[in-house]
Amino acid sequence: MTLVEPKADSPRVAHARTPDVDIATTRPGTPGGKFMRQFWIALDASANLAPGRAKPIRIMSEDYTLYRGASGRAQVIAQRCPHRGAMMHLGWVEDDDIRCVYHGWKYDCSGQCIEQPAEEAGYKRKVKIATYPTREHMGLIFAFFGEGEPPPWPPYPESAGEGIIDPWPVYHVPCNYLQCFENSMDEVHVAFTHAPGGSHAKLSQDLPIISAEEKDWGILRFGKRASGKVRHTLHYAPNIVRVIVPPLAGMDGVGGWPEITFSFTPVDDENCLWVLTSKAPVTGKAAEIFRAKRAELDRKRAEAPPVLDVVHDLWSGELHYADVRHPDLAVVQDIAVQAGQGPIEDRKREFLGRSDAAIILWRRILTRELRLIAEGKPAKRWTTPPADVVPIVGI
Amino acid sequence: MTLVEPKADSPRVAHARTPDVDIATTRPGTPGGKFMRQFWIALDASANLAPGRAKPIRIMSEDYTLYRGASGRAQVIAQRCPHRGAMMHLGWVEDDDIRCVYHGWKYDCSGQCIEQPAEEAGYKRKVKIATYPTREHMGLIFAFFGEGEPPPWPPYPESAGEGIIDPWPVYHVPCNYLQCFENSMDEVHVAFTHAPGGSHAKLSQDLPIISAEEKDWGILRFGKRASGKVRHTLHYAPNIVRVIVPPLAGMDGVGGWPEITFSFTPVDDENCLWVLTSKAPVTGKAAEIFRAKRAELDRKRAEAPPVLDVVHDLWSGELHYADVRHPDLAVVQDIAVQAGQGPIEDRKREFLGRSDAAIILWRRILTRELRLIAEGKPAKRWTTPPADVVPIVGI
Amino acid sequence: MTLVEPKADSPRVAHARTPDVDIATTRPGTPGGKFMRQFWIALDASANLAPGRAKPIRIMSEDYTLYRGASGRAQVIAQRCPHRGAMMHLGWVEDDDIRCVYHGWKYDCSGQCIEQPAEEAGYKRKVKIATYPTREHMGLIFAFFGEGEPPPWPPYPESAGEGIIDPWPVYHVPCNYLQCFENSMDEVHVAFTHAPGGSHAKLSQDLPIISAEEKDWGILRFGKRASGKVRHTLHYAPNIVRVIVPPLAGMDGVGGWPEITFSFTPVDDENCLWVLTSKAPVTGKAAEIFRAKRAELDRKRAEAPPVLDVVHDLWSGELHYADVRHPDLAVVQDIAVQAGQGPIEDRKREFLGRSDAAIILWRRILTRELRLIAEGKPAKRWTTPPADVVPIVGI
Repeated sequence: MTLVEPKADSPRVAHARTPDVDIATTRPGTPGGKFMRQFWIALDASANLAPGRAKPIRIMSEDYTLYRGASGRAQVIAQRCPHRGAMMHLGWVEDDDIRCVYHGWKYDCSGQCIEQPAEEAGYKRKVKIATYPTREHMGLIFAFFGEGEPPPWPPYPESAGEGIIDPWPVYHVPCNYLQCFENSMDEVHVAFTHAPGGSHAKLSQDLPIISAEEKDWGILRFGKRASGKVRHTLHYAPNIVRVIVPPLAGMDGVGGWPEITFSFTPVDDENCLWVLTSKAPVTGKAAEIFRAKRAELDRKRAEAPPVLDVVHDLWSGELHYADVRHPDLAVVQDIAVQAGQGPIEDRKREFLGRSDAAIILWRRILTRELRLIAEGKPAKRWTTPPADVVPIVGI
Repeated sequence: MTLVEPKADSPRVAHARTPDVDIATTRPGTPGGKFMRQFWIALDASANLAPGRAKPIRIMSEDYTLYRGASGRAQVIAQRCPHRGAMMHLGWVEDDDIRCVYHGWKYDCSGQCIEQPAEEAGYKRKVKIATYPTREHMGLIFAFFGEGEPPPWPPYPESAGEGIIDPWPVYHVPCNYLQCFENSMDEVHVAFTHAPGGSHAKLSQDLPIISAEEKDWGILRFGKRASGKVRHTLHYAPNIVRVIVPPLAGMDGVGGWPEITFSFTPVDDENCLWVLTSKAPVTGKAAEIFRAKRAELDRKRAEAPPVLDVVHDLWSGELHYADVRHPDLAVVQDIAVQAGQGPIEDRKREFLGRSDAAIILWRRILTRELRLIAEGKPAKRWTTPPADVVPIVGI
Repeated sequence: MTLVEPKADSPRVAHARTPDVDIATTRPGTPGGKFMRQFWIALDASANLAPGRAKPIRIMSEDYTLYRGASGRAQVIAQRCPHRGAMMHLGWVEDDDIRCVYHGWKYDCSGQCIEQPAEEAGYKRKVKIATYPTREHMGLIFAFFGEGEPPPWPPYPESAGEGIIDPWPVYHVPCNYLQCFENSMDEVHVAFTHAPGGSHAKLSQDLPIISAEEKDWGILRFGKRASGKVRHTLHYAPNIVRVIVPPLAGMDGVGGWPEITFSFTPVDDENCLWVLTSKAPVTGKAAEIFRAKRAELDRKRAEAPPVLDVVHDLWSGELHYADVRHPDLAVVQDIAVQAGQGPIEDRKREFLGRSDAAIILWRRILTRELRLIAEGKPAKRWTTPPADVVPIVGI
């Protein structure tokens, strides 16, 4: 247990461990950017990209185009046409190729330019657009933005047993990804942040003692209750939590406690996406009931005010925390609190305690890895998470 | 009389007295920031903070939390919880204490941490949150952000005689506070800026000759009319005007000419709040009529477009100055003109005249004080304004 | 023909000719800013400024006031009153003079201060506000922002023959003016960018081979079709295209192919205005039909969503390019593509081809001129475009 105790007479002084590397940035070329680019990164829900469509994405401070060919294949390519910089997503998907809106230059999904209507015949073979390995798993789209070969596929195992794969909406969150990943290691917060609305009431009955261990694939975290029961939660490097959680408000009574894998994907250093998928252990009639309830929740979401509007009303003080009513109540609460720490939390001002043990461990690992990367030394070789280490409810 | 005359052949050259200190900034650590932090600063109207509520405030480029305990006590504390930086205003006010929304850490109104549900028992006595002296006067909340003891209380006297204390709405104004304070010293503007709508018609009948004297508490300004009558207006250091003004449009015929004290409170260097209270010399039946009329005005305000929306339409040229209709017409006019000088007015480009005498005096005082502060020398010891120097209508 | 061919093995490397001067900026004091300030600059449509009205304008990163006196005379003056920096457009136009809203200082249209109500009598003759030569041509307002005498008037000839002068709406476009001017030299784009909607279908039937020649007044560009026909388009220095174009969608079947002169006017380095006028070769009954159709188009424009809202939906991927329906469809398409290159296109990353011949020529001219200006050497003496070089449809 790491406990960093401040002196009582200097309450404004910084006491948290201050790493000498920037552990929050993922900009290209930085140690943090290189660290993150070792892994498959979740981008979007598969259902958000129909065949024949293209869209712009921004990941780790870089812009790209994501499109799905007629065959169903999803592909990440550069944001702009190499010719004169037009946005590729404005163009036309043709079979599994994509054509630029500006002068009709066409690229296949390897990036090779295959048509240039107004140019001489020999020119097109000299032009390529950058492409990035792109695959799908459990209803999510992933890409690899690093050098060389991507890591083994899939990035994490699907849990055993029958059930429904149920990806969530993708949420845009206006803060650095790391404070969201850290929050996922912070089991105590649910008793307070999620007190209004009560979806996490069972988790709050007694506060856990937190401990954590480094693994080849991330960290395994334990929350020990007064009852003696221990909850196990998996934090996969570099930005994923796999955990069993109580049903969302709106899904009470159906689907049991789902297992979710939750990626905190950097958009840039001050914004991230929450890209989640879940597996609900239901089949047959129970699965039908689950799907109907989920459809009802989605209808309520569509009618509700945008999550970030509610968050901004909370931040300004217009709306009182206890007064929020929203079908995505827990999400509103989490974003208000986590992004409320600031676009990039000032970790130098913290007073950490024993409940922050897993956060402290992950920061230490991240600091160690980023230092090695900064110094050009061999860093840890992370492995793909094994199927036999699974989350445990433990309550 | 200070008159700075430009040469006719160089109209774009700067002629105003250019101080070598930044007289507009109030950022912490700057001479201007230290100067301002000697005084009680008006924050908000008391009526805007119900018992049990907390809200975020930003004053002189720093963020804080303002809450009112169950006992009715208002208290300014730090913006964020020392533990992990959550916004304190999202939490719960419990009696006169406040509990953080993230992990339930609780602070009393002296700032001492008194509960940490998931931490070891000995830790809480080592944690304090910063607090700031906070008091209320004439329907407004004030706090002191400086070092050491705050100045005597109250920051200014209530005028003698019976009447109604009538705080105004708080206006957010998108410019530096100093150009608003300077405008309060600029009696000539009312004849032009407030010509449309006519609420200040009486003040415009003949243009005054302005003069001003430094006092222990600020400056006393005189506006001498052709009639021989002299208007007296009090400018309390560092940012308050006390003046008798004609009734607002919408309050015509009730309450007589109210005495207002008007604080120009910096939010940051490019934004300020107008925090006003007034005393209308009415009692009994006249007071009832006053209150009914005020309630009617407030209803009209609630139905009108937001003041800043109208201002932006004026700035863009969408709306013509003469065409504005608004229950807060004079406020719209003042904000359009003053904030229209720019977020921080470029004082180096001015051509000042004799009507700017009070502005010139205050800039000279401010420059002198800020230089002394910058050099670490003893600066003026300002006194609390006496009750027997009062504004005079003089028209 | 200039063709810059990249090596096939380095697709991300920059291959375009990289000028060592910034050809995109027009900020005051820069070579680009000095270059542009040699010319009359189109500001607005005459119809957008009624007599007695004033409005703010921003041109080449500087703010000004534009007003029209009672006599009908349009005049550009400084943004702010020299006295205390109030925005002049908030004031009152009186005859052909303008009075400041703050303290009533009044200026005639030469800029001389002629009234200062609260100042001593001798002061006003020492104060002038800056003014800029301002004239009108073909329904547009132009001003000259350079040193010395402006170039001959008008800035370009009106085409011979009878017809209707028909200025267009002024569009605000969120990118640097140069990429819009370059697009006007890029005839191939119409076959792709404007494919949805079909207004340019005739132009797309076969793709032209582009060539261009420098002239005393700009560049003359040729688009040679497989049919042997050659389209002639005039690019007047520094930012105007004169071209014969197919009727806009919404004007099909009336007015014939109008001749338009289209100014790309910098607001600042990341924004520009499209200030267009046209001459439709119609008289008598045909002119009446043209005007009725134009009025109908304007009604549809007024009911349609703002062009930039549609553009932002295209950029975010919310709206699919092929799905846009809008009375200003071609404008939406052009802005989405051109401003989608970024606020200032990164020309270092381009792969130019033979269809970019005119763009390459203009960049070479601009680079040459800006270098001469940067070095203080005599630059080209541009002439006013002659009336006898006219655009040719050539299709």
